Amino acid sequence: MKRVALRPENAHQARLLHLLQDGPRSRAELGDVVELSRSKLAVEVGRLTELGLIEEAGLAASRGGRRAAVVRLSQRLRFAAIDIGATSVDVAVTGGDLEILAHAAEPCDVRDGPDAVLSVALEALGKLRSRGIATELHGVGVGVPGPVSFRDGFPVAPPIMPGWDRYPVRDVLAQQLGCPALIDNDVNIMALGEMHAGVAKTVDDFLLVKIGTGIGCGIVVDGEIYRGVSGCAGDIGHIRVNDDGPACSCGNTGCLEAYFGGAALARQAEEAARSGASGHLAERLAQAGRLTAEDVGTAAAAGDAVAIAIIRDGGRRVGQVLAGLVSFFNPGLVVIAGGLAGLGHVLLAEIRSVVYRRSLPLATGNLPITLAELGDTCGVVGAAKLISSHVFSH
Amino acid sequence: MKRVALRPENAHQARLLHLLQDGPRSRAELGDVVELSRSKLAVEVGRLTELGLIEEAGLAASRGGRRAAVVRLSQRLRFAAIDIGATSVDVAVTGGDLEILAHAAEPCDVRDGPDAVLSVALEALGKLRSRGIATELHGVGVGVPGPVSFRDGFPVAPPIMPGWDRYPVRDVLAQQLGCPALIDNDVNIMALGEMHAGVAKTVDDFLLVKIGTGIGCGIVVDGEIYRGVSGCAGDIGHIRVNDDGPACSCGNTGCLEAYFGGAALARQAEEAARSGASGHLAERLAQAGRLTAEDVGTAAAAGDAVAIAIIRDGGRRVGQVLAGLVSFFNPGLVVIAGGLAGLGHVLLAEIRSVVYRRSLPLATGNLPITLAELGDTCGVVGAAKLISSHVFSH
Repeated sequence: MKRVALRPENAHQARLLHLLQDGPRSRAELGDVVELSRSKLAVEVGRLTELGLIEEAGLAASRGGRRAAVVRLSQRLRFAAIDIGATSVDVAVTGGDLEILAHAAEPCDVRDGPDAVLSVALEALGKLRSRGIATELHGVGVGVPGPVSFRDGFPVAPPIMPGWDRYPVRDVLAQQLGCPALIDNDVNIMALGEMHAGVAKTVDDFLLVKIGTGIGCGIVVDGEIYRGVSGCAGDIGHIRVNDDGPACSCGNTGCLEAYFGGAALARQAEEAARSGASGHLAERLAQAGRLTAEDVGTAAAAGDAVAIAIIRDGGRRVGQVLAGLVSFFNPGLVVIAGGLAGLGHVLLAEIRSVVYRRSLPLATGNLPITLAELGDTCGVVGAAKLISSHVFSH
Repeated sequence: MKRVALRPENAHQARLLHLLQDGPRSRAELGDVVELSRSKLAVEVGRLTELGLIEEAGLAASRGGRRAAVVRLSQRLRFAAIDIGATSVDVAVTGGDLEILAHAAEPCDVRDGPDAVLSVALEALGKLRSRGIATELHGVGVGVPGPVSFRDGFPVAPPIMPGWDRYPVRDVLAQQLGCPALIDNDVNIMALGEMHAGVAKTVDDFLLVKIGTGIGCGIVVDGEIYRGVSGCAGDIGHIRVNDDGPACSCGNTGCLEAYFGGAALARQAEEAARSGASGHLAERLAQAGRLTAEDVGTAAAAGDAVAIAIIRDGGRRVGQVLAGLVSFFNPGLVVIAGGLAGLGHVLLAEIRSVVYRRSLPLATGNLPITLAELGDTCGVVGAAKLISSHVFSH
């Protein structure tokens, strides 16, 4: 089987590939968009076809004259996506257009370290590929739950990932899979996912706030992830909301995560259960022996007043931090995502109320604050987007 | 006199102009940097010469073979800069390389409205030009002390500029002066100034925090001003530092400016004078009838303990807000500028101490926090940079 060449040769070809990622187009349509002469367009399309990156796909409906030939991304293009979470790893294979062809989630503790976790991921990926859908891979994108040096391709001092510090994830996977690889943190990956196929499709400057075990923020400037000079931009979980607040695992006091991370929610829920303030949570604690953030969500959904108050209070703290960031960054959209986003509209209402009251009116005049649209697949779609943008660029 | 054409015709010419803004170069040096063949470079240099944008400037020192011809920006290029402050307006004329050829500052109250203030600015500019240094202008850049819609070219709901809301400053000046014009807020203009000739020359991602009558922040991403979707990014003066803080002019409580703007400092100084806590400030109040932020600086410089405590407290509040923004934005540099930056090293030490203690270690590992380098000319250099970048781009 002929090996597919991996990269476009010039900026025009890169532009054509990005356009075709949104679906097939006739040559005429492509010519309109990229502003190339008919003959130059024919040359570039020809080269991309030779490279195996695109292919003919029949004739378009008539626009009056001869029916134009339609081209599309090669149906043989395959990207792999690996989304590593704290307690599970998601893997997927997509086509060039990032449609998911196969997807699997494996339970897996990130604290077991890179060798164990990457083995699980590679084995799950191997199973998907053995179904015959991806003999060859053209790139792999990876997300991890911690800070990443994007340039170096490894996690840097990730708090919940012992053993991963500076482990060369990118290079190890590139070698194991024989294709280009890129790694980024899970929040940036989610922002890319929502930008490709979710709620942020038409927005150039936005923030995606992930509220889960930790709290982080993906920053998108002009359609590109902004990573900061050390790659840790968006790490908002340890912004102080109150000098006299509870102690945080980071050693400071009053950090946002000390109020509203997964651990903080579980702690507040257990307090409410033990003090008898919430019968619902007490019952659940008696059954399960411990409480999680999820239990708070379930209790709130069942109308438990204490659980709702916990979520309201947390939402207010998130809103306080976000209000400042909205004044600073003046985004076109704020997306709330992550496990605790499942706490839903109570949380969203509280965040909105604080941001709309506290931020600069000019910055909120036209600012939607919404829940993420993509569910469980957001991470893998984003990881596939990360690597495909790289492979499709010049 | 032949009218100088205003814009490069393609991206190569734009690149050449930007390079020459940093000084004359031989053709050989230009060829090395822009990666054009000798013959193509000759064509572009020829066109720029015909357009009147560049000119020959003798021969370079020998590099072994024939001595290369040196080219430079046309010595006839002239940019005007207008930096409108709360109580004065600075005007300047620069060459293409943004060296200041003439500079004047006129007292002027921004609250007198656009007609009055722009008249003062245009008259001052006319006087400078009448010295024969700028028969023709190739562009004018303007800074104002309030939020600006950069795209529309006017201030938007500026709190300290009554009468300026949506007044078409850009278009009025373009018409009056017969050249391209651009307007931006004073903080962005200062960031451009420090980037062109000050402390931020080699940094792509940085924050410039201006502390004066108000408090604002210029955000630079990848060497470009980031303005946000409504043009109000960086408006950090009303980020809340304390729920129970003093009332702010904006209607909320505990805003940064309510602690450390010019008005807040004056208020604290007068309290200290009246309560007898500071003999120095009491004496000054008796002489002057009122106190200003400047008096706090003078008292602190003279060793007055109360004044130093006021500055320390304010610096801590600025530091609290900046600590969050540094974790969020992960900049390569933070520049402290503006009138109150004159409070000097006490202020800087306090800001540094809070940011280095509170921000994410990864974000501060290699983060200088310094005072601005350019003094009174920062605004006009930045305004000239704003318009020259526009005129020199394709």
